[in-house]
Amino acid sequence: MFEVIGERINTSRKLVQAAVADRDADYIIDDVQKQQNAGATYIDVNAGARIGHETQDMKWLIDTIQPVATIPLTLDSPDPAVLEMAYQMMKKTPMINSISLEKERFEAMMPFLDGKECKVIALCMDDSGMPGSSADIIGRADTLVKELNSIGIATSSIYLDPLVQPISTDSNKGVMVLDAVRGIRAKYPEVHITGGLSNISYGLPQRKIINRTFVTLMMDAGMDSAIIDPLDDKIMATIKTADMLLGKDAFCGKYLKGVRAGAILS
Amino acid sequence: MFEVIGERINTSRKLVQAAVADRDADYIIDDVQKQQNAGATYIDVNAGARIGHETQDMKWLIDTIQPVATIPLTLDSPDPAVLEMAYQMMKKTPMINSISLEKERFEAMMPFLDGKECKVIALCMDDSGMPGSSADIIGRADTLVKELNSIGIATSSIYLDPLVQPISTDSNKGVMVLDAVRGIRAKYPEVHITGGLSNISYGLPQRKIINRTFVTLMMDAGMDSAIIDPLDDKIMATIKTADMLLGKDAFCGKYLKGVRAGAILS
Repeated sequence: MFEVIGERINTSRKLVQAAVADRDADYIIDDVQKQQNAGATYIDVNAGARIGHETQDMKWLIDTIQPVATIPLTLDSPDPAVLEMAYQMMKKTPMINSISLEKERFEAMMPFLDGKECKVIALCMDDSGMPGSSADIIGRADTLVKELNSIGIATSSIYLDPLVQPISTDSNKGVMVLDAVRGIRAKYPEVHITGGLSNISYGLPQRKIINRTFVTLMMDAGMDSAIIDPLDDKIMATIKTADMLLGKDAFCGKYLKGVRAGAILS
Repeated sequence: MFEVIGERINTSRKLVQAAVADRDADYIIDDVQKQQNAGATYIDVNAGARIGHETQDMKWLIDTIQPVATIPLTLDSPDPAVLEMAYQMMKKTPMINSISLEKERFEAMMPFLDGKECKVIALCMDDSGMPGSSADIIGRADTLVKELNSIGIATSSIYLDPLVQPISTDSNKGVMVLDAVRGIRAKYPEVHITGGLSNISYGLPQRKIINRTFVTLMMDAGMDSAIIDPLDDKIMATIKTADMLLGKDAFCGKYLKGVRAGAILS
């Protein structure tokens, strides 16, 4: 099943920030329930935007969301202390967002993750910046898998993010990441491959058709998860349709259910 | 470049049949110009529906279309006599639609094609019916390429149609044809892969989202042509977007041109 990590509960979004500042639980609960109803399988929670308030905001968000969440949370912070506090509050096994190969983040996250029961998003980023080729992405993925395995995180609990880059800067950026996803999928059948998609269309007009055409290609290459807005009906409809076309929807059951719910329109 | 074979000039379509019966040249010319403006690279011409009139209807259609066509025609008939007449009228190298491995059609078409300068659509169909596996499709493709090569048709002039089958009858039908397209593409880098797409969604609701998600997957697998209605804005926008994402649109030029023309909407 394709995993949809709902990205909406992020204090960098204006209305969420206002709701968090006002401790407006109804707003947050309503948003979470909408994401769940739309098919999210994780709710990402990022409380990083109000400087100096992250710990308290994260705690309040979890206290608010966890009683109504039927799905696990993705704890989204670069700060191991915030993550540790949040982790201790969890009733379902969470996903941690994220580790990378950047020295500072890597060294902060490894001790936190060591021995934890969790899923983890692992970004193919290091201190030299964004990857420059498919081989570069795959090499970084190799390192991340090896390091995480070494502290007891199973390959099947790792969500590799190959880091989608804008095609407006280089028309090869689509093929580069697609080839990398194919390479990672062939090498690690059990790993998950996730990430944001909207970077692909950065700098171009009519971005949403690019994003949903791209998710179709990424799913074909082996991506089995994405960090998206589950309330974007069209991308969710495309994901359900692509899942069916890729043979992952027996008797077209989920597709037909989506059509009956009014969620899939031609 | 992805080749779009415009399928609209077919007397099995009610309005086209009426226009042909009335010798309404304006209607036909208008439709052809719309297809060209929308990005068709071939205009398929099928005059088969008015029994007993095919030869005269085909002749009239070609006389009507050819003066305004800026792109070549696809001559669509099972009858070699009709095709021979039409072929002799051609000012640009045409595409012939189609040969298959069905004994009757194969034996009728091979002598007609022998020594001709043309492109040819070759259906992976034989007298046992539709193919039952990827290997079956690839095997039929092998035979078609070998036979057509033997009468002087270069591999680069062959448009193989793997025959898309409804996913509503078997959830594996998408993966089956995608794997076959990948296999054919790997084996014959120069061959073209084409076909209708709408069979994939036969029997399901909201068919167009299925068709355009499927064309994205087929393009990724190696399809480089399709027989479609170029006036379906959404599938044409998806094709332009997928071409860009697959690295075939330098500086996103065609995509941006499509957006400026109002042909690509999120």
